[in-house]
Formats: sequence, structure tokens, C-alpha cells
Amino acid sequence: MANTNSAAHVRVIEETPAYWRVVFDYPPFNIIDADIFESLQDLLIRMDTSQNLRVVVFESAIPDFYLAHFDLTGKIGNITTAVGASGLPILMDTGVSSEFVLACDMRFASRENTRLGHPEVGVGVHPGGGGTERLPHLVGRGRALEIVLSANDFDGDTAERYGYVNRALPDAELDGFVEALARRIASFDRRALAAAKNLVNQVSLPSADRLLDAITSFGTALTWPEAQHRIQAVLERGLQRDTDFEKSWPEVLGNLGETEKKGMSR
Amino acid sequence: MANTNSAAHVRVIEETPAYWRVVFDYPPFNIIDADIFESLQDLLIRMDTSQNLRVVVFESAIPDFYLAHFDLTGKIGNITTAVGASGLPILMDTGVSSEFVLACDMRFASRENTRLGHPEVGVGVHPGGGGTERLPHLVGRGRALEIVLSANDFDGDTAERYGYVNRALPDAELDGFVEALARRIASFDRRALAAAKNLVNQVSLPSADRLLDAITSFGTALTWPEAQHRIQAVLERGLQRDTDFEKSWPEVLGNLGETEKKGMSR
Amino acid sequence: MANTNSAAHVRVIEETPAYWRVVFDYPPFNIIDADIFESLQDLLIRMDTSQNLRVVVFESAIPDFYLAHFDLTGKIGNITTAVGASGLPILMDTGVSSEFVLACDMRFASRENTRLGHPEVGVGVHPGGGGTERLPHLVGRGRALEIVLSANDFDGDTAERYGYVNRALPDAELDGFVEALARRIASFDRRALAAAKNLVNQVSLPSADRLLDAITSFGTALTWPEAQHRIQAVLERGLQRDTDFEKSWPEVLGNLGETEKKGMSR
Repeated sequence: MANTNSAAHVRVIEETPAYWRVVFDYPPFNIIDADIFESLQDLLIRMDTSQNLRVVVFESAIPDFYLAHFDLTGKIGNITTAVGASGLPILMDTGVSSEFVLACDMRFASRENTRLGHPEVGVGVHPGGGGTERLPHLVGRGRALEIVLSANDFDGDTAERYGYVNRALPDAELDGFVEALARRIASFDRRALAAAKNLVNQVSLPSADRLLDAITSFGTALTWPEAQHRIQAVLERGLQRDTDFEKSWPEVLGNLGETEKKGMSR
Repeated sequence: MANTNSAAHVRVIEETPAYWRVVFDYPPFNIIDADIFESLQDLLIRMDTSQNLRVVVFESAIPDFYLAHFDLTGKIGNITTAVGASGLPILMDTGVSSEFVLACDMRFASRENTRLGHPEVGVGVHPGGGGTERLPHLVGRGRALEIVLSANDFDGDTAERYGYVNRALPDAELDGFVEALARRIASFDRRALAAAKNLVNQVSLPSADRLLDAITSFGTALTWPEAQHRIQAVLERGLQRDTDFEKSWPEVLGNLGETEKKGMSR
Repeated sequence: MANTNSAAHVRVIEETPAYWRVVFDYPPFNIIDADIFESLQDLLIRMDTSQNLRVVVFESAIPDFYLAHFDLTGKIGNITTAVGASGLPILMDTGVSSEFVLACDMRFASRENTRLGHPEVGVGVHPGGGGTERLPHLVGRGRALEIVLSANDFDGDTAERYGYVNRALPDAELDGFVEALARRIASFDRRALAAAKNLVNQVSLPSADRLLDAITSFGTALTWPEAQHRIQAVLERGLQRDTDFEKSWPEVLGNLGETEKKGMSR
């Protein structure tokens, strides 16, 4: 019944013309690199031109990973500089990983299996795809600063309590809840949905100016020697190669700079 | 001791000159139509000219309903177009139902008996009295979109967790809590309360421009054929006539468009 | 190992060049007067010129008090009018008590021992050091109005649920949690931390205009006869003298105006 394009890393399943599921399937970790980014750009164009579409649900085909993180081995093509169909940097359209999630209209997480966070500062850079602009509106300034400056992972309960996600649901109920919500919204009139979203967006989306500032600053941060040093350190320890490390690497970020710290203390 | 004007659908009980209770008493469902709206306008003028007033608590005399919803049978007079004493549309002053609650300074709900939501999109229109402008500031963009786009009811616990209400309290404690808070605030100096509210309002109220945009768009949405079709469908199923339906009608909104949905799927 | 300046009421312990602890030690209640305010100003200048500093944790040496409140006996020197090194009123830099806490980047509280609130309206004035500007962004308009207009204390659980603090932790875990977080952040690169904070601040700090409005209005409010009357009343009942009263005085604020209330009711 469904129309599946299984070739892509970003697989679109048209459950109905009004309700699509998009499945990230880019083993081993769903890391965001130039390939997956291009697929996202194509998807955005396809979504914009589908006049019956009301709802898109994004999910992962890989059991232990949703979207890992921005590629740190150089396979990012022109992600940080390219301009998309909208005339804005393509990084602004979707963000990456947590930022992709934050750029969605709603977020639903597994109570047991969620690890959500912003590790950027722990590798010497900072969020550049909207995280610093979108988080404060959702969770308040204090919790946004904790998330961004701690560079650590947050579990489902904490993410819900902070407002980082709409709800954390028991893993066994998550898919059913999202499916029912998606089909319900898909049954409504497109014009009413679009008008309501437009009104909410007017008072809650960050400005393009702020998003551009973050992207520009992020591009600069990637060139800092300290950042290069830290990125090398996490790659050497197993990032993008070792599954166990990939699952829990934010934990070790507080120990990456051991040498520097010893050099500074008396 | 109290001065009661029992004739009105919107009954004012002056517990003290500083603390009034306003009781909605418009059987069977406290539906907002032109009559109750006129009473609200009169009340606002009376509140503005009462120099000793500090606190007004709004409650319902009808056990199973607080404020049901905007009248959908045409008894709305000039609600959507009339301009009030403030020079702004009267719909902006108070909103309707959930929007009335959102326009209040604080919200306290029964943990067991609350059903709070924005069903507008489910009947083919969208919130027009401030809901799309006020919700994002209270609950964040993601939860505001869930509330508005799902067009479903939220219980007391979820409403509290989302920040939709200040607190959900056990039903047996709700009246006592609100009464104590109201009498406490009523004991404070009016000038201090007014100055504090003014400062908070400066950084947290939606702009008149945004509210006007929503009202204008809502007026247009009411004329859409899809909206007329859906409004007819809920009225035929029992809205504004059948108590059981009136209590739970948002549940069925996902099935209203059955015909259209079948037409679209393959 | 640590460099301690024990003479001051605001004691700085340099755990490492990157991580300082600042201990308020001004018995009996850590009341904010001109002396402690001057120490805070000196600290800000010292922090600004310490190029290795990443994190400062503020704590109290007095078991039952963190920061009590603004001095109400006249020992406030020029706190409300003085201009600091930044060219802005010094009250804007740090706020007082709850406002000091709100001006910090993050807040962690004891689940069992927290009493946090804004009693200003209960003594006839209103918050003037940023509370009315910072609270709505953290907790939403409704909860901000409840905190400010109720003039009451909030416990750790409620403060966490409202977003007034990042987290309330069991008292036995609080110090360990904050210490680990501080040392983690202190291990990151200063340039990355500063850039991330700057981006978050751009979308979440109140404007200088709004903060100045509140300070100016607060200066006026202090001259109101009603405020002078209430301030005298709480001082006579034991504020700044009696430990038990100092711990729970917001509770009685609803009964301070007994005379006035009786004069107004029939």
C-alpha cells in the first residue's frame, strides 16, 4: 500500500498523501554528513510541493541511534556554507541531530532510551544550526545554558521535565502515540493547519538574523586550534568507529582537556 | 454580606471591595455567545472603574462545565467584529473558553476534572482570540503546536506539566487554595500590585498587532467551506444539545473528515 | 591548595584558576546591604579580569540562609542609584536575593530546604532588580505573576516544576552534583563557552531598557507611604532580628494590612 523509496538514506514512506513517515537509515550511527544532508534538502523540496501533505513523522531504522551527530571526519561537503532554495544557508533549514529535532514542530521521546544533548562545547565549538536560538524558548534561559554548557546527554524524563521534548513516553507506547497523533492531524484541513502554524510561528520562531549569526560563528569556531585538538581527541578515542563509545561519548568530554587543566592548576 | 447580582449569566459576588468572585452560570454548558460576551464587556468596564478591586476569581456554577466553547449556531452577534471601549476588537479583551483562561493572569485547575484544549483546527478554523499568541509563551513552541494542531483535550496533570495552567490541584483542595491566594493578594496595596503586573506584562504579553492578525485570520477562516462543513458535522452529532457529546467531542474530531480522507487515500 | 580571602563577607575560593567558589558569609542572615553589595561589585571586576576563569559557583556559609533579602533598615547606601563600571546601575548587574539567583546562568536547589520567592509586593513595593523581567522567560507569564503577586515562598519541588530553578536535588546530592558540573564546564575551552553563552544571551536576556524601567519604578515605590508602613510593620514583628521570623516571614504578609482591610470591608 505504501510507496517506499528504499534506495535513500532518508527513506520516505507515504502512509497516505497526508501523512508520511521518514526513516533515517544510514548505518552504523545515522551520522549527519553531506550525503544525508543532501537527502534532507531533496525531502524539503518534495514536502513543499506536495499539496496534500499535512504531517511528516521522522524516525530511525537503527535501534540504538536516532541521529548521532555532525560528521567530524571531514565528509561535510559544503554543509556549513551552501545556500538552499530558500536563499538561506541549508544548515538553517534543518539543523543537525538535536538541532534537527528542535527544528521540528513537536518532539516525542522514549522514556527509557533517550539520550539527547548538545556536545558541541565539549569538543571546543558551539551549536551552529539553531540550538542556541531554539532551546531558550522551549526550556528557558537557565536550562538552555545547562544543556549547552554542560555538553552532556539528557535522559527522557529530564528532557520532558525541561520541556526539551513535548513528552517522554514508555518505549512500548511511543510509536502508537505518535502514529495516532499523526493520523489525527492528517485528517484535518490543510488550510486550517497552515494558518494555525503560521500564527504560532510568528511569536515563537527565532529570527533569521539570530540563526545566521550562530552559523557564521560556528564556521569560525571550527577553525580554532583548540577545537581541532578536541575533535582529534574524540576521533582517536573511537568516535564514528566504536559503537559503545558512540553511545556514551559525551560522558568523557569533561576529561578530554586533562593536559590543559593540569597545566593551569597549581 | 456579599452583594450579588443574580440576574446575569455572569454573576458578580463582591466578597470584599478588593476581592470579587465571578460565576459563569449559563446553562446548560456555559457556551460563549453574544449574551455572555456582552456581560463580560460590562464586567470589564465595572472592574476598570472599581478603585478598591485587586483580585477577581472566575468560576463556574455548572458542575461539569467551566466554559464550553464559542457558539457555533450563529448566536455570536458581532463578537468577531465589534470594537470595545479600549478601541480594540472586543474578542481581543477576553478571548473565548481556553483563550479566556489564557488571558487571565493565573490558572488553577482540578487534577481530576480538567479538560482543556483548542479544538478549533478540528472544526476547520484556528484559534482567533489569543490562543496562538499566548500559548507559546507559557508552554513553548512545541507544546503549543501540539495543543493547537492536535485539537484535543488535555487533562489536569498534562496541563500542569506543560505549563498550560499554573497548577493542577486535587479537586477537593482547589477552591480552598484559590480562595486563600485571592484573599492574600487582595490584602496587598493596589499600587504595588499594579506596578508589578505592569512590569511583567511589558515582557510577556503578546503585541496588539499579533492579536489583531489572529482575529482577522479567524474571521476569514469562519467563511471557508471546509470549516462550514465540519461545524455542521459536529452540530449534527450533538454539539450544543447532547451533554455526553459536549463533554468529549474533541475525541471524535479525528474522524469527522472520514469522507475526505477516503477520497485521498489509495 | 585553594586561595582564600577569608576577611570578606563574600569569600572567594579559587579551586582552580578556571573554577571558583564564592561563599556568602555575612551572619546572621546574609542580608544584602551596601557592604555585601560593594563586595559583589569588586567580585564582578575581578571575574571580568581573570582570563582563565570559566565557572563561579555561589553558595552560603550559613546553614539556614542563602541570601535573605534587601536590607530594610536603611543600610543600603547608594545601592538603588549608583552606577557601576558597566555604566549601568549596579543593581542591574546582580539583583538582590531571588534576583541574584535569577541573574545567574543556572540555579540548583535543595529539594528539602529551599524557600525561594519575591516578597516585595507584600511589603508594598515590587521587584526592582530584574525579577519581573527574568522570571517570565523562565516560568511563563502565569507562574511569574503567581510568584510576584502572591509574595510567598516556593519550595524546591514547586520551584523545579515551575522552572524557577533548573533542578531541585536531594540535599545530600546537591553539592556533589554542582561540583561535578562546575568542574566539567571548567574543563572546556573558554572561547567556546563564551561564544555559546553569547548566542543564548542574545535571545534570552531582558533588555537594558526594561531593567532600567523596573529599577526606576522601584526607587519610586520605596517612597510610597503604604510601603513605608508595611516595612515598619515587618521590622517591628522581628525581621532582621528574629531567626524564626526571618525564616518564614512571607507567610504573615497576607495579614499585615489587617487594619486597612477591615476599614474597606462592610
